[in-house]
Amino acid sequence: MNENVELVLKGKEKRRPIEVDGVKVGQGFVVIAGPCSVEDEKQTIETAIAVKNAGAQMLRGGAFKPRTSPYAFQGLGLKGLKILKRAKEETGLPVVTEVMDPRDVSWVSEYADVLQIGARNMQNFSLLKEVGRSGKPVLLKRGMHSTIDEWLNSAEYILAEGNHDVILCERGIRTFEKATRNTLDISAVPVVKKLTHLPVIIDPSHAAGHAYLVPSLSLAALAAGADGLMVEVHVNPDAALSDREQSLRPDEFSKLMEKIRRLEEVIRNIHDRD
Amino acid sequence: MNENVELVLKGKEKRRPIEVDGVKVGQGFVVIAGPCSVEDEKQTIETAIAVKNAGAQMLRGGAFKPRTSPYAFQGLGLKGLKILKRAKEETGLPVVTEVMDPRDVSWVSEYADVLQIGARNMQNFSLLKEVGRSGKPVLLKRGMHSTIDEWLNSAEYILAEGNHDVILCERGIRTFEKATRNTLDISAVPVVKKLTHLPVIIDPSHAAGHAYLVPSLSLAALAAGADGLMVEVHVNPDAALSDREQSLRPDEFSKLMEKIRRLEEVIRNIHDRD
Amino acid sequence: MNENVELVLKGKEKRRPIEVDGVKVGQGFVVIAGPCSVEDEKQTIETAIAVKNAGAQMLRGGAFKPRTSPYAFQGLGLKGLKILKRAKEETGLPVVTEVMDPRDVSWVSEYADVLQIGARNMQNFSLLKEVGRSGKPVLLKRGMHSTIDEWLNSAEYILAEGNHDVILCERGIRTFEKATRNTLDISAVPVVKKLTHLPVIIDPSHAAGHAYLVPSLSLAALAAGADGLMVEVHVNPDAALSDREQSLRPDEFSKLMEKIRRLEEVIRNIHDRD
Amino acid sequence: MNENVELVLKGKEKRRPIEVDGVKVGQGFVVIAGPCSVEDEKQTIETAIAVKNAGAQMLRGGAFKPRTSPYAFQGLGLKGLKILKRAKEETGLPVVTEVMDPRDVSWVSEYADVLQIGARNMQNFSLLKEVGRSGKPVLLKRGMHSTIDEWLNSAEYILAEGNHDVILCERGIRTFEKATRNTLDISAVPVVKKLTHLPVIIDPSHAAGHAYLVPSLSLAALAAGADGLMVEVHVNPDAALSDREQSLRPDEFSKLMEKIRRLEEVIRNIHDRD
Repeated sequence: MNENVELVLKGKEKRRPIEVDGVKVGQGFVVIAGPCSVEDEKQTIETAIAVKNAGAQMLRGGAFKPRTSPYAFQGLGLKGLKILKRAKEETGLPVVTEVMDPRDVSWVSEYADVLQIGARNMQNFSLLKEVGRSGKPVLLKRGMHSTIDEWLNSAEYILAEGNHDVILCERGIRTFEKATRNTLDISAVPVVKKLTHLPVIIDPSHAAGHAYLVPSLSLAALAAGADGLMVEVHVNPDAALSDREQSLRPDEFSKLMEKIRRLEEVIRNIHDRD
Repeated sequence: MNENVELVLKGKEKRRPIEVDGVKVGQGFVVIAGPCSVEDEKQTIETAIAVKNAGAQMLRGGAFKPRTSPYAFQGLGLKGLKILKRAKEETGLPVVTEVMDPRDVSWVSEYADVLQIGARNMQNFSLLKEVGRSGKPVLLKRGMHSTIDEWLNSAEYILAEGNHDVILCERGIRTFEKATRNTLDISAVPVVKKLTHLPVIIDPSHAAGHAYLVPSLSLAALAAGADGLMVEVHVNPDAALSDREQSLRPDEFSKLMEKIRRLEEVIRNIHDRD
Repeated sequence: MNENVELVLKGKEKRRPIEVDGVKVGQGFVVIAGPCSVEDEKQTIETAIAVKNAGAQMLRGGAFKPRTSPYAFQGLGLKGLKILKRAKEETGLPVVTEVMDPRDVSWVSEYADVLQIGARNMQNFSLLKEVGRSGKPVLLKRGMHSTIDEWLNSAEYILAEGNHDVILCERGIRTFEKATRNTLDISAVPVVKKLTHLPVIIDPSHAAGHAYLVPSLSLAALAAGADGLMVEVHVNPDAALSDREQSLRPDEFSKLMEKIRRLEEVIRNIHDRD
Repeated sequence: MNENVELVLKGKEKRRPIEVDGVKVGQGFVVIAGPCSVEDEKQTIETAIAVKNAGAQMLRGGAFKPRTSPYAFQGLGLKGLKILKRAKEETGLPVVTEVMDPRDVSWVSEYADVLQIGARNMQNFSLLKEVGRSGKPVLLKRGMHSTIDEWLNSAEYILAEGNHDVILCERGIRTFEKATRNTLDISAVPVVKKLTHLPVIIDPSHAAGHAYLVPSLSLAALAAGADGLMVEVHVNPDAALSDREQSLRPDEFSKLMEKIRRLEEVIRNIHDRD
């Protein structure tokens, strides 16, 4: 580990939950769920209600979408953020949403409870500094090509600006294997737990790229000691404008949540004995 | 998936446990444990007794070791196999051991209950054919550079010779990440479960390369739906001739087994509801 | 290839050199050289004169440095850009320099002849759009974990904003091999030449990470059909604030340029016969 | 570099060409060409004559083919070796052919001038020891997943048995890039040249997986300092039983050889000045 990663290292600061509107990330197992992109108000609010009823504690949804092609759907922008705000009013769920441009940080912060830094921007240092100054909790995704060491250095950029509310999110790395979209690096959970006091969650949807893999990977994340999940759920995956293959339907998500809650109790007991 | 992988595909044959001297791989969660290499009789038998007492159902141990350097310890060969036989007499645990050379298959089969094909030999097709004709159950490790598709094709080589008793073992793939020796591809478990009727287990020790990661990865494997584990345990890891950094001490293994058995029950209930 | 990559595809536009202050990139073999970072005026101008004398046609130098750690030297910023301007006045060499933040594009453009997008920002879509609107030639480095398809999509972002002066730069991809810092993907040259009309150059310094490898890789790039090179040269590599191991000394660079010019003629004849 | 790699390290032995029936590998630029598989006598002898006329110095051709699927064409075996012998009688070209099983080494040696170890068998240590005892020159391909350090360790296995006639062959490594079958690691040439006295050649056909890329990569290999090439040529690529997409037709190969011979002279002059 780079000796310059000081603030994120374990021991520098007490492990403590990060508070987001009453939800404590880093205490218990927190599930964030919602659509990949905000597409319209109806779809978003229906999904928000569905994930809330199934037991999710936060809502995810993209208003700005980083897309490989300039001609792919880029998100609804401000209109999307307003829809997320409506969904929050409806359900009470705090909102996690991505910000891609340092110029957008201040006004996006008015709509978001957690600012998400996407995998492609993990080393967008201008953006990291800006969210570091925002005062908002940040969810920092690991780059699909980044080592754990680089990831923690990127977290350090945010803490160095005075913002200590960083949630790490492993979302799969790029390898030669083609059966999955990316390879979920489950080992990152215990490695990160050993090195830093920051909470770490898993995004099984982007890692796997196929809905059928999400339940197994979610349970594995919980068993490995992760602090939570971020899962893509869509009321009608076949009609989704992005990531349709990896989104769970509400009934699938609901079934997964039941399994998670049953497993969670045993895992907590197991870890309490350590 | 390659259309030529016929015998290993789900639906061709009923999922059924593979019987090894009374142990049923593919029914419940089977734990195989033991030293990386057989180094001497005392060390091996002590370890065998320790893992047996902790609840392991099979003993692993290498008499032939595939080593990067020609000058590294290459294993005790026949002497090592005899020690494994003694350990089996002492504990009743069936023995899993690696075979590296097609010329050794027939006589190694007299000492082994399961023939292991190591990661470096996953595409040693002469060896695959030979173990396919041996009549012995085979534990086929995934190559550290191999896709799941290639792995199943290698299993097909064994089944095509008439031997249907193949246990798949994921042991980590090679990526750019350096915090772990390899990257455990936990997603391989549900992918393989979807494609084939063969049981699949996880080797967290070789994947992680560090003992402290083994418990988390073992619980993750169980939660993800794996049929078992293969774990390195050594009575005195610091003195081990190979893989010292990744071997558990008997007391650590014992603690892990307790956690596994507690988790196993819940996982079984969860999956029974599917 | 993604069907949406329209503007960069061969056939949409005639292959034509990109003019940068009299230098034609895409005609002959253009060599860009200079220090990794601009550290002070003396070092920069001495290096600029040295590379000019050796035959380089453009000067490279970083005023903004994307660094893994927030505590590493981040570049001199505006002061660095002013030094580069001085170096250009001294030598007549047009200047290539990196821009990392969309808010900096307009004012950095006053100092730069070519705006460089670094590997970590290849999918910083806000930045791509901004340089697409800048009217300045852009040097787009391939991400160290990006496919050629994604790279061309990122170029498309720039062309789609109306800026067709994009120079592609391969700088090594991330693999498991450790003898080099990255793995130079030399095949990217003929692949890109087949797909697009845009010129492609090679950065052997960042790919290799060791100065001793730069000459061989430079000659290989020329033989493979690349349109040029970007090479790190420093008057005193041992004192460099970044990338000291991979920078050539002026005498080494001079020797390399002699080899390049001799080889260039034969290569041109060989390709003319195609 | 592993300290145990003694015999292959530079300085232990003088760099000297490896003699194969009058051809000196490691002196000048040696081109080995021929079909992927020996399919029948007519195809093989026609191809052998064609590559001989174009200037190739050795003939390659597989009688034993390591194939991912057990149901794919596995080669003609002994019949194939006899055809290769006939082709040698016809053309005088020494024959390079793969051996996959330690039990075959002694009798295959009667038909082969150089024994090839394929990428999948680079760490088949039983096979390495056997060819180490064979007295025949060995062409050792780098595993598609192997570091340079591991590759040199595998060479050391052969030298340690008393056989010092080892030719290294880089054939591409496995990465995330999909535009090529594998990623040719051109940097391996100067790295290996720095570390060892053994000659190193390039196989652009397997690396690229597409015939259109072979000429550029061949010239790059020569410019980077490689000692030769191994190229797939087939009189009728469309009818080939394996690797049809990457084989050159004889006229394409002939054109490539002309370019190589023209470039070779300049490269020799350039390197003589070092």
